[in-house]
Parts: sequence; structure tokens; C-alpha cells
Amino acid sequence: MAKRVTGPEIEKLIQLLAKVPGLGPRSARRAALHLIKKREQLMGPLSHALGEAYDKVKVCSRCGNVDTIDPCTVCTDDRRDQSVIIVVEDVSDLWALERAGAMNAAYHVLGGTLSPLDGVGPDDLNIKGLIDRVSEGGIREIILAVNATVEGQATAHYITDRLTELPVKITRLAHGVPVGGELDYLDEGTLTAALRARTVI
Amino acid sequence: MAKRVTGPEIEKLIQLLAKVPGLGPRSARRAALHLIKKREQLMGPLSHALGEAYDKVKVCSRCGNVDTIDPCTVCTDDRRDQSVIIVVEDVSDLWALERAGAMNAAYHVLGGTLSPLDGVGPDDLNIKGLIDRVSEGGIREIILAVNATVEGQATAHYITDRLTELPVKITRLAHGVPVGGELDYLDEGTLTAALRARTVI
Repeated sequence: MAKRVTGPEIEKLIQLLAKVPGLGPRSARRAALHLIKKREQLMGPLSHALGEAYDKVKVCSRCGNVDTIDPCTVCTDDRRDQSVIIVVEDVSDLWALERAGAMNAAYHVLGGTLSPLDGVGPDDLNIKGLIDRVSEGGIREIILAVNATVEGQATAHYITDRLTELPVKITRLAHGVPVGGELDYLDEGTLTAALRARTVI
Repeated sequence: MAKRVTGPEIEKLIQLLAKVPGLGPRSARRAALHLIKKREQLMGPLSHALGEAYDKVKVCSRCGNVDTIDPCTVCTDDRRDQSVIIVVEDVSDLWALERAGAMNAAYHVLGGTLSPLDGVGPDDLNIKGLIDRVSEGGIREIILAVNATVEGQATAHYITDRLTELPVKITRLAHGVPVGGELDYLDEGTLTAALRARTVI
């Protein structure tokens, strides 16, 4: 703003809101005004929730999920099949797979993908933790649910190599046509994969 | 989420973030994870800023701007021409006009527009405060910078009626082609107004 039209506390709030993914400078101002208008219903509770999360959030030392307990809710859930580990790049992938609700397994969050150009090597990811979990025994399957990108696939390849000596089945997600997807908009690689993995109806 | 995968504090945070304008359920999850990753750089400061704003924000009793002081920064700015009042619907309009930086005047925030269908009458808006400010004297111009909507124009009309007895000049924003706008995309009303208000070059 050219001239000061409001207090520094409000300008600071707008600046910080603008750093939240999904909000830009303009929407941060709108968000700040909305929060001010909804002082009791939203601003107070959100301030409290952020403080709570700030104080309590930790990364699970076992799987890398974020939670307020360590080991996390997923790792301590004995209704899950803890002998199957779904390996994901990020916590958001873990949450996305849980929303799908297709598996009732354990997880392992790598915290990224191998990317030599960006200086991300095996030691920068939580790969050792995964090897350790498998080495301890009791794991029968590792599902590599990494993104279908070059980096994701390279990471999957590296992990497969590292686990090859251990008595564990390693699987990956199927490639194919997304449910609801239109063929016309899909790339050749996906169409080829979907054709090759075709199933009998 | 189908099953619990994280702590209730984090789920609460996601729920509240989803109520912020510009964020939905999906982007709220992404925002929460980003905040957790940027615990020190963003989550802590944002929590603090929200707390500060919660404690300190007030509505200016004179003009309706939001600030941490009352009267607000704009009303107490003696480098502004306090004899000109720009009347706006919302605080966001005040901020938008200040970003344009075209005037160095005082403001008055109505807090909405007259809307009989929604049960918003003159007493629900900060119109009396405006009349009082003009009645006190020392005001030479009222610029009605309300939205060019039916409700905005009805509100401008009502305010003009109420101020007609008082010795003050009342103006409104010009209609015309937005700067950078393409004629092809403009409605007939705007084009007609722009033609009628054409200026000599």
C-alpha cells in the first residue's frame, strides 16, 4: 500500500497470509478482512488452532507422517495391517491415499524424491528408516506409491535396489486411464500402459 | 478423511483454514502441511499475528475502517485533506482506492449497501455517522465511490437525498472503459456511458 491506511499488526497479518499456499497478496487482504469480520467465529479459533499445532505437531519418527503423537496415529493403529507399508513422497500423498480408503496399511513418508540436479541424494530422504523397518522383519509387502514422474520412478528404482536382498514383496501402483478421464486428453505413455495392462471384462 | 490419520489438533486446523476465503477443503490441507513444514518461518509468526490482530483490531468509530487505533490511521492523518470524504461500501474498497493512490482524502465505510430484499435498511449501514460528520461542518465534498451495481446506486441515491440540505458538494465515480479493457467485452451500459462522457484529446 502506498500510504498507511491501517495498523502495522494488520499489515503484518496480510503479509503472512500471502505466504500461505493458495493465497496471494490480493486474496490475503480479502482473507484478513474476512478474519477481522469473523473475529469470534474464525479469527480467534484459527489463532488458537495454529498455536496448538505449533506447540504439538511432530513428525512421526517411524513413518514420517505429521501428527501430535509419536509414533503417529497410523503407526499405532492395530486395526491396520502393519505388515504392508505404502511408501509415499509426501504427507499429502499419505492423506490422499487415506481419503481413497482402498488400503488399510502402514505408510512410510520419504520426504521427497531423489533429484541429483537439486542436490537431493538418498541420505536426504527417509530411505534408511524404511530399510530399517523392513530389516526388523514382519513386513511382507512394500507398495511404492511415488508419483509417476521421472524423479518418482528413479526413487522407486533406487529403493527396489536397496530392498532386493530382503525377503519382501515390492509392488508399485498400476498405470492406466484415470477413472472419469477422457482418452483424448491422455498422453501416449498412459494410453500405452493402459492398453498393455488391459483386463478381461 | 475416512479414518483418522493425524491428530485432532491438525484436523481442526484444516477445518478452520478451509473457512478462509480463497481456501477450500483441498487447499486447506495443502496450506496446513505447508504451515507445519514452515513451523518456525510461517506457522509461529502467523499464529502470533492472528493473536495480535485478535487482541488489537478495532473498527474506527469515525469512518468504519479497521485498524488497531481508534480513530484510525486514515482519520488521524493530518496530511490528508479531511474535508473530502470518499464513501465506500466496504473496507476492501477503501484499501483498493488507497492502492490506486489517486486521492489524499478521508473515507467513510458504509458496511454494505441498501438491500430491502435482504432486510438491509438505512439503519443497518453507517449512514447516520456520515450525516453527522457532514453536519459537524468542515466537509466540502462527498465522493460516492460505491459499486456500480443496482444496490450500490440505490444506496448512493439515498445518501444524496439525505445530504441534499447540507452545504456539501456530492460527486460520484465516472463510468467508462476500464484502463486496459477491450471494448468487445464491455456491456452496452458501460459503452453508452463512456461515449456520453467522452473527452476531447
